[in-house]
Amino acid sequence: MIASLTAHRQGISDAIRDIAAQYGSAAAQVNDWGPDLLDRLVDFATAGKLIRGSLVVATASLFGTRPDESLYTIAAALELVQSFLLIHDDIMDQDPVRRGKQAIYTQYQNRGQAEDYRDWTRFGESMGICAGDVAILLAIEAVASLPVEPAKGLQLVRLISAEISKVGIAQMADVANGHRPNDASADEIVSVYRYKTGRYTFSLPMMLGALYAGQSEAAVDALSEWGELQGVVFQIRDDQLGVMSETEEIGKPAGSDITSDKQTLHRLEFLARCGADQPGLAELFGSDSIASEELDTLRSAMQTSGVLDALERRVRSLRAKAAEVIQKLDLTSAQREALAEIDAFNAERSV
Amino acid sequence: MIASLTAHRQGISDAIRDIAAQYGSAAAQVNDWGPDLLDRLVDFATAGKLIRGSLVVATASLFGTRPDESLYTIAAALELVQSFLLIHDDIMDQDPVRRGKQAIYTQYQNRGQAEDYRDWTRFGESMGICAGDVAILLAIEAVASLPVEPAKGLQLVRLISAEISKVGIAQMADVANGHRPNDASADEIVSVYRYKTGRYTFSLPMMLGALYAGQSEAAVDALSEWGELQGVVFQIRDDQLGVMSETEEIGKPAGSDITSDKQTLHRLEFLARCGADQPGLAELFGSDSIASEELDTLRSAMQTSGVLDALERRVRSLRAKAAEVIQKLDLTSAQREALAEIDAFNAERSV
Repeated sequence: MIASLTAHRQGISDAIRDIAAQYGSAAAQVNDWGPDLLDRLVDFATAGKLIRGSLVVATASLFGTRPDESLYTIAAALELVQSFLLIHDDIMDQDPVRRGKQAIYTQYQNRGQAEDYRDWTRFGESMGICAGDVAILLAIEAVASLPVEPAKGLQLVRLISAEISKVGIAQMADVANGHRPNDASADEIVSVYRYKTGRYTFSLPMMLGALYAGQSEAAVDALSEWGELQGVVFQIRDDQLGVMSETEEIGKPAGSDITSDKQTLHRLEFLARCGADQPGLAELFGSDSIASEELDTLRSAMQTSGVLDALERRVRSLRAKAAEVIQKLDLTSAQREALAEIDAFNAERSV
Repeated sequence: MIASLTAHRQGISDAIRDIAAQYGSAAAQVNDWGPDLLDRLVDFATAGKLIRGSLVVATASLFGTRPDESLYTIAAALELVQSFLLIHDDIMDQDPVRRGKQAIYTQYQNRGQAEDYRDWTRFGESMGICAGDVAILLAIEAVASLPVEPAKGLQLVRLISAEISKVGIAQMADVANGHRPNDASADEIVSVYRYKTGRYTFSLPMMLGALYAGQSEAAVDALSEWGELQGVVFQIRDDQLGVMSETEEIGKPAGSDITSDKQTLHRLEFLARCGADQPGLAELFGSDSIASEELDTLRSAMQTSGVLDALERRVRSLRAKAAEVIQKLDLTSAQREALAEIDAFNAERSV
């Protein structure tokens, strides 16, 4: 199963190109911005790890469905949905770099600046909003055009739109948490983890794969629940890597989650345990920069004060719940092992 | 037909509320921003003229299909698509007022400011991006959930996503035209009229109504072509009202299209005819403000220099082409009259 999470990259990348060529071609004829956008979307979407698309294919395979063109198209469409979300996210976060490349809005800003456009910062953001909008519509059109039973095609469209609506609303809370004058509570943070990351990174791909493979509603529901729990673990691990790991491991500056004051469970737990005793360390959150000795001290305090242990307990509890959910499914031992492999990989990953 | 363009407002408004309640309810449970957003979306969507939704119902009725719940849902979904586009447009244009009320992003800015949010201008824009995203997904989910033949449901989803992709790309050109250092050409302006306004305001609603009414592909195509021509007329009339009409008639400050330097055919034609001879008037485009005497002088020059006549010739030519398109359709005389009524209403409207 883990191997199959990387085995399908080529098939999914090809399908992303096919969607752009096939469903985007009419839109691209509107004006010169059209073909230019499709090129940028293909570059952007194929540069990712394609985890979500791969999970669609792996889940369908788990239930005995051989990957075919339609399955790759669903996976590719989900990666375009991911592009839509990231393109808009990067504007909201004013994050000019994504996947080691320029964010889409930054690409347009640079073009606007090079071509003497007035107010090119605003120009780039506006173009980025449009680019994200086109990406989601392209994804929907591709899924609605699949050569599958119409009732199944509609089911897939409904599932994607319903789940991504929830991501949009979770994103609103995430935006608000980044601007509000007081801290978000642990429950509020976990709610963002659940709906912004969890359901969308694990539940949705697995539900799509299971639906495509003709699994029962009960099985799809169980995978949805299992995926949500795995997704929260995924985000907690991501936050931990953001504090504890080095630049080369995480692909972003070490400690940047601290300086950006990202509202994580690690931060909340640290402030609750050490905020009053160690004001110097507490002030690092949201500060302009962090020296490597300061980061080291913070990391030690995370360890000695029990923050990391507390988060490990939370991870163990989530994984135990996930294991219970699996019991609801009527699975072969090979299938159980495959899911256990994902569970272990997700909980223990160090990159 | 004209009467039927206003007769369905209540049915469409009710259907917008139903979509929010029925398909939005799961998303609204994610956090408190969810139900709050749904309220704002319903207020926003129902405050419009509902022209596009009404045209869906009127077109289906034209072909003998009695308005039922599904038809109203399609119309309401199209109005939510319109909300999605306007919410994002208002951010791009930095336009704080829409339909006499606060734009959605402005509503969030005000809430952020009142609640001491950091960087509340950015907060409001980010929330506006999310709000638009949720609106389009809600619209797609509603159409994908219609109790119609699955093949027809998919056809409707495909049509909406394909057409709105084109709107997105036309919007990119419109954004670029507002920032580029040189003027857009007449062809570039007409391309925006065609894809941003024309196809979307007339073609798409009429195609949806005709598809729902079970019309042939040929009929749907002819209505698409007719609608596109009508849409360009609609935009030219809109631009004319923007220059020639008073605040109380157009619902925005008289002359604001001049000071915002909106790239219209009227502007381009005026600068070509009078730009060199009347530099004082040419400078009004994009100026900080315009006095009422200056606006009067500009209006007179539009008249005497032949700008208005030139645009009238263009309108006549578009209407003549539209009349030819109608000939392709196998229509009763009552149906022909109904379309002629829309044509006349559209070309001669003064508000």
